[in-house]
Amino acid sequence: MAFTVKATIASFGGKLLKLSHPSSSTGTDMALNVFLPPQALDGKHTKVPVLIYLSGLTCSPDNCSEKGFFQHAAAQRGLAVVYPDTSPARGLNLPGDHDSWDFGEAASFYIDATREPFSSAYRMETYLAKELPDVLFSDAEVVGQYLDGSRVSITGHSMGGHGALTLYLKNPGKYASVSAFAPIANPTQCPWGEKAFAGYLGADNRAEWAKHDATELIKGWKGKDVKMLVDVGTGDNFYKQKQLLPENLEKAAKEAGVKGFQLRYQDGYDHSYYFMASFADDHVNHAAKHLKLPTSKAMF
Amino acid sequence: MAFTVKATIASFGGKLLKLSHPSSSTGTDMALNVFLPPQALDGKHTKVPVLIYLSGLTCSPDNCSEKGFFQHAAAQRGLAVVYPDTSPARGLNLPGDHDSWDFGEAASFYIDATREPFSSAYRMETYLAKELPDVLFSDAEVVGQYLDGSRVSITGHSMGGHGALTLYLKNPGKYASVSAFAPIANPTQCPWGEKAFAGYLGADNRAEWAKHDATELIKGWKGKDVKMLVDVGTGDNFYKQKQLLPENLEKAAKEAGVKGFQLRYQDGYDHSYYFMASFADDHVNHAAKHLKLPTSKAMF
Repeated sequence: MAFTVKATIASFGGKLLKLSHPSSSTGTDMALNVFLPPQALDGKHTKVPVLIYLSGLTCSPDNCSEKGFFQHAAAQRGLAVVYPDTSPARGLNLPGDHDSWDFGEAASFYIDATREPFSSAYRMETYLAKELPDVLFSDAEVVGQYLDGSRVSITGHSMGGHGALTLYLKNPGKYASVSAFAPIANPTQCPWGEKAFAGYLGADNRAEWAKHDATELIKGWKGKDVKMLVDVGTGDNFYKQKQLLPENLEKAAKEAGVKGFQLRYQDGYDHSYYFMASFADDHVNHAAKHLKLPTSKAMF
Repeated sequence: MAFTVKATIASFGGKLLKLSHPSSSTGTDMALNVFLPPQALDGKHTKVPVLIYLSGLTCSPDNCSEKGFFQHAAAQRGLAVVYPDTSPARGLNLPGDHDSWDFGEAASFYIDATREPFSSAYRMETYLAKELPDVLFSDAEVVGQYLDGSRVSITGHSMGGHGALTLYLKNPGKYASVSAFAPIANPTQCPWGEKAFAGYLGADNRAEWAKHDATELIKGWKGKDVKMLVDVGTGDNFYKQKQLLPENLEKAAKEAGVKGFQLRYQDGYDHSYYFMASFADDHVNHAAKHLKLPTSKAMF
């Protein structure tokens, strides 16, 4: 089988599986968690749609599985949640990938690096957009039998919000919807993004940076209305420090005439999982709506 | 003011306050978290009832605040949640209180120790049953103005389930209801309880142990029907290892003719916060029902 099952944990009437698998994109083992809702396990063999959740800086697949409470609404609506890891570098120990918490391990920014020493392993865009879906949806033995690979939405937090927004905008039609909590919405214009893109893509290569910036990407959006929900807390210090810049994304969407973008400022909320847990139901329901899931009575 | 506010965090439309205060019972500073639901903060000055949550071995007030999901239903029903700490000994460094994870620091068993060196600081029963309510409900400046000290229920997990059950049974009428997740329900008969009671009360003092054992206490219950809900996961290794013994509590309640005790075995669930989060709504709703809270439309 493609996946090694590290743990199976009962959660909200379904099962949370802690998995790992060898990745050809990164050349390393990759960890991920998959929540299967009760509707996937009721014996009727109905495949359920999938919400991919991308974590923020420093996180592993466990943080949001434990603190995000996506499982609550996912169990009600019948949606699987996939929690990939934030980088390939667990234990790789490349030069520079452990020097700070906002670059290298657990800080991939979900792009394919083009600069040494990161370009061979840090290929998270290829991993997330191509390899992981291929492996996940074809693996009949462990999870593929439960998942409908034709119905996928994506969400994420902070760096993972950047990942979700950019993967959505780069791949029109691939995801039914996107949402983000406190995303790094304009990374070419903030310290976190500048540091990451300089390291992974080259400080002298700003033209390439724009291809991985949601605010730049939305200017060239040619698809139908975006299905995009963004929540940002007004008490979020990173928002105040201009690391997130959701206002730039909103302005770019407006100026480009892109419809379907909803930005909500949540009064007093910070950058933490307390914030995410408070609005997790909304984000799951946003995905469930665009994945055409019925609003039937909760199974759990 | 009695409390020092360490942090104020927006959560589910309310506020989670991280507090500390000097305790006369323990002679140390005590940490606690208090969740104020949106109904307490709506400007109408209506005091809300309180659910006290006692944590399990090794935990601080933060674990359940982050992973327990109590705020979700508490915000819907209009219930404050108080998360006390699990012991007085943060930094005390008494002889033996750091030698193992199931005794001493973060392992008080919520009793008043009678043996040295623990008897001066380990006075958690007095702290929880007397001092904390006095301070909490009279402190007008920080939280007391929001809390209705005449309407209180109690719940807990594992060691905290033992604490909740015994405090309820020792103080008829003090709490409107009690519930527990995977409680240590018969500590005089399990290794965890024997170790704790031997250390805090004396190995030669088994008659005293029975006064702090829910299964023994329920045999002498003289009150009305208990309002007692207990959930235990069938996949819980500590249940399998006979550390919890909910079956003994159930048998004792039945033989004593005590009504109102409900024990539910939850298929496949373990001992973790994944288990608690899955049934947190039920436990909050159990308390809310006995606290006579309306089932009005959710504010959040």
